[in-house]
Amino acid sequence: MPAFYKRHHRKADGRELILYSLSPLTAEALPEPLEAFGPAPHLRYHPLRREWVVYAAHRQERTFLPPKEHCPLCPSREGSFPTEIPFPEFQVAVFENRFPSLVPGPPPPPEGLPVAVGEALGRCEVVVYTMAHTGSLAALSEEERLLLAWVWRERYQALYAMEGVRFVMPFENRGEAVGVTLHHPHGQIYAYPFVPPVLERESQAFREGAVLLDLFPHLDPYAVDQEEGFLAFVPPFARYPFEVWVAPRERHPGPWTFSEGEMAAFARLLGRVVARYDALYGEPFPYVMVFHAAPLGEEGTFHFHVEFYPPRRTRDKLKFLAGTELGAGTFVVDALPEETARLLREAL
Amino acid sequence: MPAFYKRHHRKADGRELILYSLSPLTAEALPEPLEAFGPAPHLRYHPLRREWVVYAAHRQERTFLPPKEHCPLCPSREGSFPTEIPFPEFQVAVFENRFPSLVPGPPPPPEGLPVAVGEALGRCEVVVYTMAHTGSLAALSEEERLLLAWVWRERYQALYAMEGVRFVMPFENRGEAVGVTLHHPHGQIYAYPFVPPVLERESQAFREGAVLLDLFPHLDPYAVDQEEGFLAFVPPFARYPFEVWVAPRERHPGPWTFSEGEMAAFARLLGRVVARYDALYGEPFPYVMVFHAAPLGEEGTFHFHVEFYPPRRTRDKLKFLAGTELGAGTFVVDALPEETARLLREAL
Repeated sequence: MPAFYKRHHRKADGRELILYSLSPLTAEALPEPLEAFGPAPHLRYHPLRREWVVYAAHRQERTFLPPKEHCPLCPSREGSFPTEIPFPEFQVAVFENRFPSLVPGPPPPPEGLPVAVGEALGRCEVVVYTMAHTGSLAALSEEERLLLAWVWRERYQALYAMEGVRFVMPFENRGEAVGVTLHHPHGQIYAYPFVPPVLERESQAFREGAVLLDLFPHLDPYAVDQEEGFLAFVPPFARYPFEVWVAPRERHPGPWTFSEGEMAAFARLLGRVVARYDALYGEPFPYVMVFHAAPLGEEGTFHFHVEFYPPRRTRDKLKFLAGTELGAGTFVVDALPEETARLLREAL
Repeated sequence: MPAFYKRHHRKADGRELILYSLSPLTAEALPEPLEAFGPAPHLRYHPLRREWVVYAAHRQERTFLPPKEHCPLCPSREGSFPTEIPFPEFQVAVFENRFPSLVPGPPPPPEGLPVAVGEALGRCEVVVYTMAHTGSLAALSEEERLLLAWVWRERYQALYAMEGVRFVMPFENRGEAVGVTLHHPHGQIYAYPFVPPVLERESQAFREGAVLLDLFPHLDPYAVDQEEGFLAFVPPFARYPFEVWVAPRERHPGPWTFSEGEMAAFARLLGRVVARYDALYGEPFPYVMVFHAAPLGEEGTFHFHVEFYPPRRTRDKLKFLAGTELGAGTFVVDALPEETARLLREAL
């Protein structure tokens, strides 16, 4: 584990902020405005799809503290408008989302609804990858990316230790094509009080067989890149034309069981996958990246992996999810995985 | 059943075209170009999500026969560029999709893949709602909409009679926000050789309880509109802010068991839901509309309903599906169903 400095800060509105850095963090906090949270979220159960839906109605009024010309994820400077981070320096910053879908102390859900309801217990965090306003997982230095990987690992451990949390998912939404208007490199983490449907199905599959271990010997035509102990590949059953998975060759329930060497290899490979995406068309490639680690209780069989879903079909065309995908759950894909794997292999 | 005329035509490239009209269809077919189909689709099984994925690689080269200024869903006129419909008149037209994801006589799937494969058996149809280039389900005359409803019913019966088909789904993708660039009012129908995952879960729920019948007595705050025997409502567990369902108050497996009066009420209510959507912001409201009828073998318990998924959160803002929705299967919604139901009630 790289030696790093860490600093906890309680924001004026009560939210936690954690700064991480390879050099000491000594600056004093700048003054912060006190902003009220909106109404608290709650859960409702969808009786036909059999899944929880999260209602976070205050998200409609989502605004950002700073004016437009000032990014809320940049460090704050003396005298300037306050950002989410009232410090002049950090390397990685994690803070509680100001408009959370899941919260540590949720109020009781509304009464009298004609469906099952639940408390939206959990936590939603924002992970700022770097002080720099532009960049990406690919553009970070190796040292910065490694620290970020250790931050994910630490957040996994902290959030799985929260009473009632059953699944923790770091993810990144990148690009306007997936609805992101904040370009400062960042991701998020959701800690859920239930095992979400996709993870329930994956858990069951892993309980019944070592799906990824069985697949690895056959992935040559699908390989995109590799590092010692890790493989990046387009799954032969990809649901998005440029879908890529990154997984350790041996089974790990999550990054928290990686060796130091594995942490470094994992961080490097993630960076290189994004570099390949960006090289494909010579511009930042939009994607949704999700980490699938073992839900609580599945540590014995679940195989950690990262899934990237890019919404692009070609340079100019987006893949839209519509009737068959949204209404039936069956994806139609225009491109063969063996072909997009080749394009991504040749991109760098 | 309204008396209507029907005409079968085999297009030059072998695809079937069926015209429907309340007046006789006597014009001769105009000449058609012979366009080759692309490579045939196949299925691959996703071993972690446990669902079939359809590979239709030729869809990448999707082009339309006619030049840009000519809509391929308009009727053809003598001497003009040919459209998909080589006739000068029709009221509703159904034809096999030129770039199908599922086909009646699929070739064997590729061999040697490291995942389970299957034949992409089925059929993909385009349903042109009207000869008029502009309009919508709301803008059709009552007579036109009723004929369309009967066409859906007939296609249900024809496609469920196809050997190997297990689920039939009419749907409509409307608006550029869901990826549609053809503005001529139209929908599609997919006939699948398997029960897609969403329908599997709904079928199981209906086998275990009369979910919709149990819900109906409690829907007053969620009601949007109604017709004799039918209700339009925002489900109290909506996954999209303006999601609306239309369902018969008594259980029907599909429109094929509706009485004549129910067919008319259903068609009217569907049209009025779209009119309410369009009235909301004074412009065509984008949506994905899907019909959920009983998959093969579920006719005894499944309750037919229509689901509308609009991608709008507000007038200016789209709802993007991202990390939590795509990667975990858990939807976060900004608006309360009881509130959007009120907006839709008051829109007309």
